[in-house]
Amino acid sequence: MASELIAIVAGVGPGTGASVARRFAKTYPVVLLARKRENFESLADEINMSGGKAIGISTDVSSKDSLANALSAIKKEFGDSVCAAAAIFNASGGFLRKPFLEIDPSVFEQSLNVSALGGILFSQTFLPLLLKGKEQGEHPPTLIFTGATASVKSSAQMASFSTGKWALRALSQSLAKEFGPQGVHVAHAIIDGVIDIPRTKEWLKGLGPEAKLSSDGIANDYWYLHTQPTTNFTWELDTRPAVEKW
Amino acid sequence: MASELIAIVAGVGPGTGASVARRFAKTYPVVLLARKRENFESLADEINMSGGKAIGISTDVSSKDSLANALSAIKKEFGDSVCAAAAIFNASGGFLRKPFLEIDPSVFEQSLNVSALGGILFSQTFLPLLLKGKEQGEHPPTLIFTGATASVKSSAQMASFSTGKWALRALSQSLAKEFGPQGVHVAHAIIDGVIDIPRTKEWLKGLGPEAKLSSDGIANDYWYLHTQPTTNFTWELDTRPAVEKW
Amino acid sequence: MASELIAIVAGVGPGTGASVARRFAKTYPVVLLARKRENFESLADEINMSGGKAIGISTDVSSKDSLANALSAIKKEFGDSVCAAAAIFNASGGFLRKPFLEIDPSVFEQSLNVSALGGILFSQTFLPLLLKGKEQGEHPPTLIFTGATASVKSSAQMASFSTGKWALRALSQSLAKEFGPQGVHVAHAIIDGVIDIPRTKEWLKGLGPEAKLSSDGIANDYWYLHTQPTTNFTWELDTRPAVEKW
Amino acid sequence: MASELIAIVAGVGPGTGASVARRFAKTYPVVLLARKRENFESLADEINMSGGKAIGISTDVSSKDSLANALSAIKKEFGDSVCAAAAIFNASGGFLRKPFLEIDPSVFEQSLNVSALGGILFSQTFLPLLLKGKEQGEHPPTLIFTGATASVKSSAQMASFSTGKWALRALSQSLAKEFGPQGVHVAHAIIDGVIDIPRTKEWLKGLGPEAKLSSDGIANDYWYLHTQPTTNFTWELDTRPAVEKW
Repeated sequence: MASELIAIVAGVGPGTGASVARRFAKTYPVVLLARKRENFESLADEINMSGGKAIGISTDVSSKDSLANALSAIKKEFGDSVCAAAAIFNASGGFLRKPFLEIDPSVFEQSLNVSALGGILFSQTFLPLLLKGKEQGEHPPTLIFTGATASVKSSAQMASFSTGKWALRALSQSLAKEFGPQGVHVAHAIIDGVIDIPRTKEWLKGLGPEAKLSSDGIANDYWYLHTQPTTNFTWELDTRPAVEKW
Repeated sequence: MASELIAIVAGVGPGTGASVARRFAKTYPVVLLARKRENFESLADEINMSGGKAIGISTDVSSKDSLANALSAIKKEFGDSVCAAAAIFNASGGFLRKPFLEIDPSVFEQSLNVSALGGILFSQTFLPLLLKGKEQGEHPPTLIFTGATASVKSSAQMASFSTGKWALRALSQSLAKEFGPQGVHVAHAIIDGVIDIPRTKEWLKGLGPEAKLSSDGIANDYWYLHTQPTTNFTWELDTRPAVEKW
Repeated sequence: MASELIAIVAGVGPGTGASVARRFAKTYPVVLLARKRENFESLADEINMSGGKAIGISTDVSSKDSLANALSAIKKEFGDSVCAAAAIFNASGGFLRKPFLEIDPSVFEQSLNVSALGGILFSQTFLPLLLKGKEQGEHPPTLIFTGATASVKSSAQMASFSTGKWALRALSQSLAKEFGPQGVHVAHAIIDGVIDIPRTKEWLKGLGPEAKLSSDGIANDYWYLHTQPTTNFTWELDTRPAVEKW
Repeated sequence: MASELIAIVAGVGPGTGASVARRFAKTYPVVLLARKRENFESLADEINMSGGKAIGISTDVSSKDSLANALSAIKKEFGDSVCAAAAIFNASGGFLRKPFLEIDPSVFEQSLNVSALGGILFSQTFLPLLLKGKEQGEHPPTLIFTGATASVKSSAQMASFSTGKWALRALSQSLAKEFGPQGVHVAHAIIDGVIDIPRTKEWLKGLGPEAKLSSDGIANDYWYLHTQPTTNFTWELDTRPAVEKW
């Protein structure tokens, strides 16, 4: 029996994560990881009802044990020989934009635990499935990290976000260099702008309908990265609305 | 009559330029610019014979007058209302890798004239056609610059190449910020590795068949950039073989 | 009574930390923070016996409580109105250079705890003393972070070091932008090369006596940064031996 | 007779150039290069009358012949065995901040000719004197390039400045790597802000007396770079007023 080839998406809120899951679900069964069930349940239902296959697993990416449980659940569902075609780390810790001295250390800690340590634990958990996926699929197995403006620029009062995001970018660059030669494509996307989701509906209205990033557009970028052959791996791309100031 | 929508490619040697021309010729008539006729003649024939349309114009991108002549020839061929869907600047000045004090100033001058000033003159010549192309095509008009490892890293003895390439990257970033809000997608690609062309056949042989960049893969990247919607413009991506050390 | 103006150095091993402590001790009483007493005892003795003043406090920078204890000890020694002329964060978590999948998650965690969270907690603890130091001294109060090659480049198998170092650099940039306008000079130094200490005695021998960084030279750089006026703050400088390949 | 050890400063307007010349004139005879005599005459007089030694030579750094004439004049004044302790390239081409398509190509050309080609020609002319200066002085011979915000960031409508500045930064990085191992210290300074000179007197007034860079402070930075030993070369530092937004 051929091994099942799946895509794993961590961090499936209403924006990038959901769009990426829908996009990869056109080709692969997808595993949706989020701490809260309400973040993946309706998305899983939607995918399952529209001809795809999705399972959601309540997972805390900052916990090694929680990720081990997720892996067990994946193997239970798809068999021990399951392989990964793609793993997308889209999780981010919460953060506060306010004066540095007014932020409780736990905010920084939690942000580092999710964005940085979470990225590390996610990679350690699923890289073995990606390495096994090498000969299985049409495209090289792909590990993608979602970055932000704050991955390359650290503004005043933004340290509780940027510290984790810079660490995650460092992780992705190191992994790209280590696992590229082993056939796994590791990439990092700098999402530079506001994503168009219900919560941001009222933002940037004066700039017209195209002032916000389309999360489906981001999902297309991720899918494109996934389709690149081993002769042409992109580590990093940025993406922003045409009207964005930068 | 609808305006004709073309793609213009400057610098069509055997690698990236030719592949990009072939890729864009699947959708648009292409204009091939190179100083020497032998660099575009057989490519134009090949495209014309395989169902596409191509014309070659002998052009020196470091000369304003030569570019003005190219523009006249384009208008003669495609009409005064011709618009551009894409313009790709793939030209580079020659350079020497040897001790700085042994390089004749003319080498630096020629490199700056082609890579930096050439990029400027090319952009000034064809941005008006791209701006006009906005409402015409399926995709936002796109101006792409070919960069290299030396666009972001300036090694010893490489200044005659890197000075022009850093200048070109500066140009592309400034134009992306100025013309993005006007609907033109400006992008820069960092080609980080050896491209697989006849001249490099014997290079990196020990690293296996995938140690070199596929120029068709690069062309796919450029085409993908061209298809991004105005909500999701990538300014820069890098690309390299999976096995590349970086 | 004028407030006492001190310098605080976290991470005082045999290299940069010790040299920096000696350099700042020429002008200020210095507080030496390290987890292990043996890392600061002989240095404190040396400074005290050569006409300076130093106290060592056993401190774990990754612990908020430990830093609070250090602050109490400082106030006990120098009075509640103590101010800081300089605070230098030179601590680093341990790391392993080996395949990513063979590294225990605790290594990454400890590295992030010291390099990233440690830098955050150190800054939250001592920025209030620096802010108070503004009108007291000859030079603007200065907060300096020690970075490394791995602060800007993340090599294969180096993620357990680079993730923390990139996060620390993000912290320093954000703090520079927030606290510069408040009169505190925040800087980051990229130490790019091997430092000449007993442990590295046999390294790079073939490259001659000047192939390694002098830690006293680094201390001079830090002191120079400290002396810059508010009209001329440097955020970042790199430093390496003349013969270093980079 | 010992060889004369001089400092050469190209681009001596009222700001950085003049301050750097005054600073280095405390230790070395200085050679002032500028196209227009009025840019160096009163400065040379001032230095000569205050106990230093300065000569001005009318020089166009974008012209190889003009630089050759300058070198002849220097040898005539200081002898054929003259050596350089420092060479500072502070020249910049003019530029226009306006829409890209409204700028005459000659503006870009002139900017590239001064900032990029000028830096190359200046380096080719004076590196031999710096190499000869190695065993002569107290400090390693130093070649410093003046950069700007636009050396690392290319804003909309700023391409006529940034293209030259990025090229100059590429030059400085390549030369640092090539000539560092030969004992010449090559550095690049990113001047990020408005310099306090008569022309900018009315600028940023609302931000207080310290909102502008002190050119004497920049000169101190350059002097500090010059004094770094071969074990501790800084390639790049940035500098800005504490209140600057960045």
